Amino acid sequence: MAAPEIEQLIELMARLPGLGPRSARRAVLHLVGRRETLMTPLAQTMQRAAEHIRACGSCGNLDAEDPCAVCRDPRRDASVLCVVESVADLWAMERAGAFRGRYHVLGGTLSALDGVGPEELRVAELLERAGQADVREVILALNATVDGQTTAHYLTERLADTGVTVSRLSHGIPIGGELDYLDDGTLAMALSARRPV
Amino acid sequence: MAAPEIEQLIELMARLPGLGPRSARRAVLHLVGRRETLMTPLAQTMQRAAEHIRACGSCGNLDAEDPCAVCRDPRRDASVLCVVESVADLWAMERAGAFRGRYHVLGGTLSALDGVGPEELRVAELLERAGQADVREVILALNATVDGQTTAHYLTERLADTGVTVSRLSHGIPIGGELDYLDDGTLAMALSARRPV
Repeated sequence: MAAPEIEQLIELMARLPGLGPRSARRAVLHLVGRRETLMTPLAQTMQRAAEHIRACGSCGNLDAEDPCAVCRDPRRDASVLCVVESVADLWAMERAGAFRGRYHVLGGTLSALDGVGPEELRVAELLERAGQADVREVILALNATVDGQTTAHYLTERLADTGVTVSRLSHGIPIGGELDYLDDGTLAMALSARRPV
Repeated sequence: MAAPEIEQLIELMARLPGLGPRSARRAVLHLVGRRETLMTPLAQTMQRAAEHIRACGSCGNLDAEDPCAVCRDPRRDASVLCVVESVADLWAMERAGAFRGRYHVLGGTLSALDGVGPEELRVAELLERAGQADVREVILALNATVDGQTTAHYLTERLADTGVTVSRLSHGIPIGGELDYLDDGTLAMALSARRPV
């Protein structure tokens, strides 16, 4: 149909999450119409990122250097580790801007259905880091899903021997949330975990 | 937040149609996790396409060569020109596989609101091509929108002097369409344009 260069580009773009064949075609036409301002810079940036970006050997964050910018930053508190499922969750925590410690990216959650055991995740690395003398708290910032909570439970047990304080994010009503629209589980949880004012 | 290489990649990806900041982040993480199989090939294919793809000087189609593959193909009927609004529409016609003539990409539709006049479109080129001795029919395959139909009307008038037959795509019930779900305009059109069986 179209030139092989375009067909191939559409086929590759369609493999991105959120894009199908139709939106990939639209994206490619958008790109071709903005060759200098978007297409060439995007191709070059992607090439550069593919060459330079790697996972931090310590925390698993993505950066052009290893250790990553978070692990290198001397102003960040090395005594608190925040355990997240993925780099996307690490970015979400950083956007919130409320955490000034270091991270540990697990690389997923335990899942019996998908056959993900502790060996598939960076659990051994976490236990090793948590066992170091300067670490005093591990915050489990895992998703409030069944797999996330199962993983949190498992990690709490494994971390018991290291002697660090293990905490988790609080559950409750999200800011701006309306009771009438909230699911029953969250509401029940928010009630049982109520705090004195 | 993340490394500058990643931030810049996210920022550029978010400018694609159908992607916002959040889905651009997801797409970038998806890419980084598939460096060899997707990210590097995509970057290289995009770079190659940016360098080689250009608009066909004759019909306006996109191809690595000029004239494009459709214009070069000797088996295609040079006596019929199909006028489409965009390259996306040309691709749609080619996917339907029912047209074996040549194309003419207008590059848009007339629009008083958006200030698009005949000079902004490839109208002069169309009149020149339609005036050539071997062209006998021009098919107006424009969208069934107000702007598309206004443009079709304008082109019909302008093409009258060239002596070619001007036709347009038929309107009616789409294949698989159910009368109960069809808009009134289409149904009225399908009735008035009924054909003897």
